[in-house]
Parts: sequence; C-alpha cells; structure tokens
Amino acid sequence: MHKEFKVTFEPSGRTVYVLPGTILLEAADRAGFVIETPCGGMGTCGKCLVRVTDGDCPVCAHSRKVLSDDQLAGGMRLACQCKVETDLTVEVPESSLFQVGHQILQSDTGETVVLNPDVKKRFLNLVPPSREDGRSDVERLEAASDCAVDLAVVRDLPSILREQDFSVTATVLRDRIVRVEAGDKTDCLYGMAFDVGTTTLVGTLIDLVTGADMVVVSCMNPQTSFGDDVVSRIKKCRDEADGLSQLQGCIVEAVNALIADAASQTGIRTDDIMSVALSGNTAMQQILCGIDPKALGEIPFVPVFRETLKSTCSRVGLTAHACGEVMVFPQIGGFVGGDTVAGILATGMDRVEAPVLLVDVGTNGEIVLAHDGRLIATSVAAGPAFEGARIINGMRATTGAIEKVVLNHDVEVNIIGDAKASGLCGTGLIDAVSALLRSGVMDETGRILDPDELSADVPNAIRERVVPTDGQNDFVLVHRDETENGEPLVLYQKDIRELQLANGAIRAGISILIQMEGLTPDDLHEVLLAGAFGNFIRRSSALRIGMLPAVPAERIRFVGNTASFGAKRALLSSDEAERAEQILARVTHVDLSLRPDFQMEFGAAMLFPEE
Amino acid sequence: MHKEFKVTFEPSGRTVYVLPGTILLEAADRAGFVIETPCGGMGTCGKCLVRVTDGDCPVCAHSRKVLSDDQLAGGMRLACQCKVETDLTVEVPESSLFQVGHQILQSDTGETVVLNPDVKKRFLNLVPPSREDGRSDVERLEAASDCAVDLAVVRDLPSILREQDFSVTATVLRDRIVRVEAGDKTDCLYGMAFDVGTTTLVGTLIDLVTGADMVVVSCMNPQTSFGDDVVSRIKKCRDEADGLSQLQGCIVEAVNALIADAASQTGIRTDDIMSVALSGNTAMQQILCGIDPKALGEIPFVPVFRETLKSTCSRVGLTAHACGEVMVFPQIGGFVGGDTVAGILATGMDRVEAPVLLVDVGTNGEIVLAHDGRLIATSVAAGPAFEGARIINGMRATTGAIEKVVLNHDVEVNIIGDAKASGLCGTGLIDAVSALLRSGVMDETGRILDPDELSADVPNAIRERVVPTDGQNDFVLVHRDETENGEPLVLYQKDIRELQLANGAIRAGISILIQMEGLTPDDLHEVLLAGAFGNFIRRSSALRIGMLPAVPAERIRFVGNTASFGAKRALLSSDEAERAEQILARVTHVDLSLRPDFQMEFGAAMLFPEE
Repeated sequence: MHKEFKVTFEPSGRTVYVLPGTILLEAADRAGFVIETPCGGMGTCGKCLVRVTDGDCPVCAHSRKVLSDDQLAGGMRLACQCKVETDLTVEVPESSLFQVGHQILQSDTGETVVLNPDVKKRFLNLVPPSREDGRSDVERLEAASDCAVDLAVVRDLPSILREQDFSVTATVLRDRIVRVEAGDKTDCLYGMAFDVGTTTLVGTLIDLVTGADMVVVSCMNPQTSFGDDVVSRIKKCRDEADGLSQLQGCIVEAVNALIADAASQTGIRTDDIMSVALSGNTAMQQILCGIDPKALGEIPFVPVFRETLKSTCSRVGLTAHACGEVMVFPQIGGFVGGDTVAGILATGMDRVEAPVLLVDVGTNGEIVLAHDGRLIATSVAAGPAFEGARIINGMRATTGAIEKVVLNHDVEVNIIGDAKASGLCGTGLIDAVSALLRSGVMDETGRILDPDELSADVPNAIRERVVPTDGQNDFVLVHRDETENGEPLVLYQKDIRELQLANGAIRAGISILIQMEGLTPDDLHEVLLAGAFGNFIRRSSALRIGMLPAVPAERIRFVGNTASFGAKRALLSSDEAERAEQILARVTHVDLSLRPDFQMEFGAAMLFPEE
Repeated sequence: MHKEFKVTFEPSGRTVYVLPGTILLEAADRAGFVIETPCGGMGTCGKCLVRVTDGDCPVCAHSRKVLSDDQLAGGMRLACQCKVETDLTVEVPESSLFQVGHQILQSDTGETVVLNPDVKKRFLNLVPPSREDGRSDVERLEAASDCAVDLAVVRDLPSILREQDFSVTATVLRDRIVRVEAGDKTDCLYGMAFDVGTTTLVGTLIDLVTGADMVVVSCMNPQTSFGDDVVSRIKKCRDEADGLSQLQGCIVEAVNALIADAASQTGIRTDDIMSVALSGNTAMQQILCGIDPKALGEIPFVPVFRETLKSTCSRVGLTAHACGEVMVFPQIGGFVGGDTVAGILATGMDRVEAPVLLVDVGTNGEIVLAHDGRLIATSVAAGPAFEGARIINGMRATTGAIEKVVLNHDVEVNIIGDAKASGLCGTGLIDAVSALLRSGVMDETGRILDPDELSADVPNAIRERVVPTDGQNDFVLVHRDETENGEPLVLYQKDIRELQLANGAIRAGISILIQMEGLTPDDLHEVLLAGAFGNFIRRSSALRIGMLPAVPAERIRFVGNTASFGAKRALLSSDEAERAEQILARVTHVDLSLRPDFQMEFGAAMLFPEE
C-alpha cells in the first residue's frame, strides 16, 4: 500500500487523497475543478496557476521558467507540472477555472438565465509536432481540448493548425469539436432563435459570447401561398408527391433569408452562427425538418417525434455554419408543439403553483393551464384572422395598418407609421369589433345592425358608416379620403364571422381546460397573453370580445413572443434546453377533437359575451 | 424488506433474485439474456417464449391467447407478460434469444471470426397508435428496439411505418437506427471491404447475414495518372488548389464503380450495402476521405488522425446506402497506415510470441516484425515496379501477362489467359530477374553481361537473346512471333534497375527491423508474404533476388491480400474492429528517414545476394 497525501482545495474546502507524485492538475480535476490548459498541460502557457498556501510543493522547472520570483515566493505554481509530495492546501484562483461567460442575464420575461450555451469557443495553443512527439493532428487537438473531433473538422485540420503555428480556436458542441479556425476567434460566436409560426416567422440573432440580442427579423411564412392553416398544408404533403419538399423548400429558403438579413444588418458572417433553435407547432417543425407530417392529419394525430431533435444546419439545409447545431424543440402531441414548450420555458409556468393560464394567439392557438404542479395544454385551429389573413382588408402589423380603433362621436383610428390607412391588422380588428359591440352597432351574435335598428344614442357620423349590402351590413372604418388607395376601408360582416371563428376556438379551448381542472376564470392568478402580436392587443378589447376569460384586467400580463423567447433561452443555456425536455415529460396533452363537449363549447363561444 | 424470489435460467444455470411481480423478461434481462421482442413486449408476437420447468407461473391472458393448450401445459409462457410469483426454473430456448448470426466463420488466413457485425437488421412488429396510446412514431420505434433513431430515418418514418401496418425492419448501427424499411427485409444486408492501394483497388462484397464472400472486384487506382507514388500525389495536394479534390474525386468515383460492379454481378441493390471498411496507407486513406495529406509530406510526417475514423457513406461520397457506415482503419504513423493494421489483424501477428515477419509488397511496401509481444512496423517507398508500372513492357497481372519465367535450354514463359504475350507482370519480372541471375546472364550488380562475357555453359538459344544497345545489354524474353503486337518482348537493363530500387527498399527495411530486435534471418519463425499479388510470387525467386530474408522456403507463407482480409474481419465482427484499435496502440512505428543506417542498408540491398 502506497501512502496517499491529502490535498485540500480552497476556497471550497474540497479534499482529495492522491498518491505521491500525482500532478496537481489531476488532483484538482478529481476535486471537480476544471482548470484552463490551453497548451494541453505542457507547462508553457501559464494559464493553470494555483497557489499553494500550506505544505511544501517544490518549484518545477516549468514553473521557474514561466513565473516570476515574486509569484513563486507567493506559492504560485503551474498545476499542470507540479507534483504532490506531501499534504497540501491549494487555492484555485477564479481566473484559472475554465469557464465561458456564465454571467447571469435578465431574460425577456423577467426570469434570469445563466449564460452557458451548448456551443462554445475555446482558444488553444497547441505544441507543434516534433520528431519526439509524432502524435497525429487529431490526437494533439483532442489531448489539448479533451473533446472528440468531427470528420468535417479533420479534413482541413493540417492547414488550419499550421496557419498560425498551432494556435487555433475550437468551436466545441458539448464534447465534440465541430469547427477549427486559425488564431483567436473566440469573440465571434452567434446563435439564432426562430419562432416558426403558421403565418409569421420571427428570428432573433444572439451574441453567444455576451448573451446580448443583436437584431430581430421577421417575414411571412411563404407556405401561406399553399394554404393558410396547418391542415391544408398537411393535406398537400399527403396528396402531392413533392408536396413536402415544396413546403420544406420554401420555409427553409425563408429562414435562410432571415439568417442573411440578420447577418447583413449586424455585419457578422453567417458562418459564425453555430447554433440555431427552432420552435413551432408540430406540423411546422416537422415540415421544416423535411419530416413527413401525414400522421398529424390522421386519428390519433401522433407526431413523428416528441423529444428534442438535434441535427446540423447542413442536414436541415440552413445556411448558417454547416456543422452548426439545429435544435428543434420537443413536441407535446397533436398540434401542440415546440412553441408551447418554449412558451412554458419562457414564462416559467413549470414552476408556478397558483393557477396560471397561457394563451398564445396565432393561426394555431395554444393554451396552457398550470395548476398545482400540473400542466395541461391544448391547441385550437384559430385560423389566420388574428394575423390579418382571411380578412378582406386585413394585413400584417406594418406601415399603413390600423392597429387601434376607438368609437366616440365618430371612429378614431391609429395607423402604424406616418401613412394613410391601407388595411386592418389583428389588434385593429379586435379593437374594431370590441368597439362596435360597446357602441351597440353590433349585437352579441356578431351581426352589424341595420341603420334603423340602431339606438338613438349612436352618433350620426357612426350611423352613416353602416352600409347595407345584400341583406346584411358592413361598416366603413376609414373614409376614402383618408386611405392609401382612395377607396373606403370597410370592415365586412363576413370579416366579423372570421373573427368569431378564431375567437370562439380560443374561448372554447380555454373554457375546457379551466373546467377540467375544476376552476372558474376568477381562480386564475394570472392570464399570460403571448404571440408575436400579443403585446399590442388592448386588454379591454380582448376581454370585451371574450377572447380571454373574465378576469380583472390587471391580472392579464403580456408576455410577448414566448415561442421566440423560449428558443432563445435554449440557445443561451444548456440547462434551459434540458429543462425543455423536462417540461415535455410533465405536460398532459388535451386533444379537443376527442372531447364531446368541445363542439358545444365552440358553438357557445361563437357568441360574444354580454356586456 | 420485500421477499425476493430466485429465478434460475437453464441451460446456463444463471440465477437472479427478483421482487414478486417482476416480469420474466426483466428477470431474464438481468440474467444476461437478450430475448426477442419484436412487438415491443406487448404480448402479441409470441417470439419471447420461455419454458417454466420448475415452480408455479400462472398463465397470463396474453399467453393464453397466443399459445396453444399443449404449449401452456408444457410450461411455455410469454416472457414479456408473465410474472414471477414464486421461485422458478426457466428454460430459454435458443430460438427466443436475440441474435443475428453469431456463427463462427473460417477466415481467409485460417483464423476464425465470430459473425457479429456493427450493423444488423431487426424485424419489429410495432403496435399501431390508438387513442389510448398516442406515443410519437419515434417513441414507438425506440421503445420496441431500445435504440435511438437518426434524423435521416425520422423523415420518412410515418409512411414506412404505415405501409405494412407497423411491421418494419430496422437497420441498427450499434445503438442507433439508421434505416427503416416496411416489412421483413432482414435477409438483405451487405458490407464491402476495400483495400485502397497506391496502384490497385480491391473490393470484396460480403453478405453480413451469412458472413459469406459474394464477389471480389478490382481496378487500377485512377490517381496513378497524377503520379505513381504517394509522394507525388501529396505534392499535388500541396501545390494545386484543387489537387486534393481532384484526387479525392477520382478515387471516390473508382470505389463507387466497384460498388456498382459488385452489386450488378450479384444482383443486389447498392442501397442494401450498409457498411464499408477501407484500409490503405495513410496518404490513400486521408485523400479518399478528403483529408488534407500535406503534413505527411513534411517532417516529422504526422498523419492527421490515428484512431479509427467512422463516418457515413454520404459524407465520404460513396454510393452505398447514404447512412451506411464507413470505417477507415486506424493509422500507425508516417506512411504506415490502415493496410498494415489490417494485415496484423488478418494474420493474428498481434497474438504470436515467436519472431514473425510480415511483408506486404506493393507500391508502398509495409513491413511488420512481431517479437516477444512487441510489434514494430515500417514502410518503404518501393515504387510501382512490382505492380508492373515503370517497367517498359510492364503490365498488371491480367490476360497476356507473363507471370512465370524459367530458363533451361531456352526461355520458357507462362502467360495468363489463352493469349499471346503482351507484357510482364510483377511475378514474371521477379522470375525473369531471378532466372537471369541463376543462369549467369546477369551478375549480382544487376548488369546483363555482354554476350562474349557469358560462360560457355549458357545455351546458344539464351545467349542469342542478349541484345547489346548503347553500351549495355537488354534481354529478349519472347520473340516477335509469339507476342501480341508482333514485336519482341524485351526486358531492358533499365527495368532491372527499377526492380533493384524496389527490391532494395524492401530488403533494407526488413534488415533494419530484424537488427533492431537483435535477430538474424534464421531466427524468424515465419515470413508472411502479403499483397494482392503476393500469392503468385514464387518463393525460390523471391529468395534468389533477396526480397525476402534468407530463411528455408518452407517458412515462407503466402497470406494474400491481408489489407482486404483485415478490412473484411472488421466488417464481420465489431470485436475485430475493436481489436484493430488495440493493435494500433501496440505498434511502434519505425521512421526509416530518421535512421542514419537506412541509406547504407539501402545501398547494399541494391545488390542481389550471392548464390
């Protein structure tokens, strides 16, 4: 039996017992300290400094060469060279510990996140080969990094290593090196988070070194030209031999255009984007990855995968770095996909006790109820009315869109940008319908009344906007002299029916989840309103049309585009990506199509609530 | 504390203790039996039959449904459903054990190999989804196979699963499913082993279900048009921007042509080739994988990788199944590459004690000496003379090639195929030179004597074949009336100098390894002669020209194309692939360029030995 020496590490006080002659670096490793060794432990870089505060640790030749006399006298040693020959107490300075960032960031929804992405860059100063050291290039790199090397990296390795005398930057994805660059490139590392909506794509470019948002870019989902809801797109994949490849092709192209746009706006290289996180509903996620979505269109509506899907940019077809990782969010079931998991992640609903409701308003509406540690989720086909589609004068919330409508003596509208009115976006539509309800121009069935049915209180300016057509009535929101094209901007009776369908689907879904948990709206501690345009909906209007359950307005909180925010969290922190998996395991999926009460609830929810 | 029951498994007698209610399948698993469960343990397929020979095991509902009364009375039960409720003795029939083959094959070099490839096919009978069982397609497949599913598989999974009612064949690479086919396709699984020589490519198609060789195909390495040795090809990669991609492109194309050829000769689909093993010298392996070989051309000649490189057909560009595995043999150092590791593997040199020498004769000659558990290896640049190149009338060993030469009263030659002579292949060259030496037409310096210097014993018919030209002499091997083109087939003095260079390099390499181990030729227990054409060299001729050390002819054994045989072993058995890695760790590389004695040995070895 050899005698073992005790080595105590400060400030943590962790202690290990090692055999005489053990290198300090190894003792530290066994005590759980990962110490920087860019030179691969060859005693040349001086990064692995530790201070011996008690016990005798002879000065080794390398320490003498690299450290000053003062440092040596103060007990500083190179951990990679000095040996344990007696009991020691050793202090590990923060600066010697291997860490990329780990700063704490404030997240979009208020929660904090610790910066610790799956992908990191490390600067390595390798020892060049010599006649005495004939290790292969891969062995040399693996020894210095303690990571495996991908084939894609191996191909150009000899040139890159020799370009700046074996000083390189390795991009490490968990425990694999996926890219090697000559010299120190540690400050160029980016990720991109995407919310892949049925109607809208939103991308956020993130600096993975600082954790900062750099730019947000968005565009229409070009698949809308093949059908504006998920069901029509699944049908196309089922019915047409090249349906899937057409749909995948155009969405991948759109995502790539956003990547290029974000890079050009910020002056970064797309090749430095090493990580992409995608969240969307099950159909959107599957189609983007080229995964046949047909089973989502058949009973019992099973997704092809549920757990996080990890792939590479080249396999998915994205024009970030070919070996960059693509993380597709875990999917819950039916159409409840990665966007819902991302929403729960972003809002921290997996950690609340009191009943909290999350409503993500989009073409596919997702609803999650957290209660007593349980999470139940469903999706409803709201249709694209909230995103301005299927509305005759509908448009996205860009320049010229009416985003706010108030009825006093006459109609007052607010238009985005310095422009004349061109159309009506989702928030404007909700406002308009809510205002018509309040003013009595429309009844609870959604019917715009005949001018002669209107109460005497209705001002003439408003009354004159009601236009009878073919036995029903439309409503002029903006007169021709204030519109872009010189035609009156009309809200049609038919548009209101579209809104009723969208609104009713969401109302019915919310209602069923609340009933399943034995709750009433008033029990809800908070109602979180999410979605790309969620922040712009006026709470009073959403309450008036019944889109949200009847709670006091102050309990409604806008949480923004949680699908994007959740994807960002997963990019910024491997723990958050892991948490997404844990959320998946906890959510119960409610398939409304299996519930006999849904049709009845839906029918009732088509009516607007009484004032 | 719960009471545990003892379950003994026959015929092995292995025993485990389990809690009451444990499923028999789990108990068997803990005892180390992997039992077939194509239905994923749902009690429907009846493949997991076991016989309870002692103790009481109640008949479960599934067993009653699937098994006959006779079977039940005989103690047969479904292991996936029945529970342990008392001590039991259980017999596991061979037919219930999960195994692909595992038969023992006789290998090319006499050693046995257990068929257990890295890639296997498994037939799975999945339970279709239902309203009660909404698992995703991936979860369903993973649960039934206990393997992870690759993204490439996920894409078409929904259609394939539903094509034959959830009966599928999964191709499993270690623990990952890399392919899924509808129905039972377990009998179509192939691999291909390649010897990637500097001058010649040889491919062997193997049935991975039976372990049988199906066909051997070969062609010239098309890179020879860019230079006939490895050094000129490395130079091309270094000097020309697209040099590497040109060289890689043509070798990949040639390998693909061999794949297509082998498939068409045997009537299999190239898509059913799921595994490819490649062995060659370091430069050939690196170039084929598109890995920059420049560091092999610079001191200290380090390879880019040493350990086994695993990739996929699609990444390397091979037209077997895109997700098929490519295994590139581990490399030792300098030019001593995967072909040498494969040679050691094929011959079992890593397991011998007595001194054994392996000589692989090719454009790059590899030499390995096993002694006292040590393995030392080197490579020499022999040049392509042995493969018929750089010899004026040289050719490969195909129809029309002189493969044997004897001098009695006149020259007698043996020609391959029913043809007139067109040229001289490697074995014919060695024979011719050896015969000229023996007959005294050539001296030990390699000079063909003047006709008037010849001894009186030399028959006239031979004497007349010596043709003085420009102050030296050439030798007519075949007169014009017996050649294909009607011209005399001449062995030139210059050709003999080429052979001396090739022969001298190999002799010097052998000599240095033997000296390093303190041995003499007579200590060698065996000399193994390898190489695609090794089997055709006549031992007496090889000894006469000194290519092999002076041992009794019976100690020389022809072991054939060991680079191919080793690659085949790695395809057939994951243990053999693992053993290749172990060999790598044990071989010491001797870099002859670092040895001052090499030039002297080489100079001496240019002379042929005295009789």
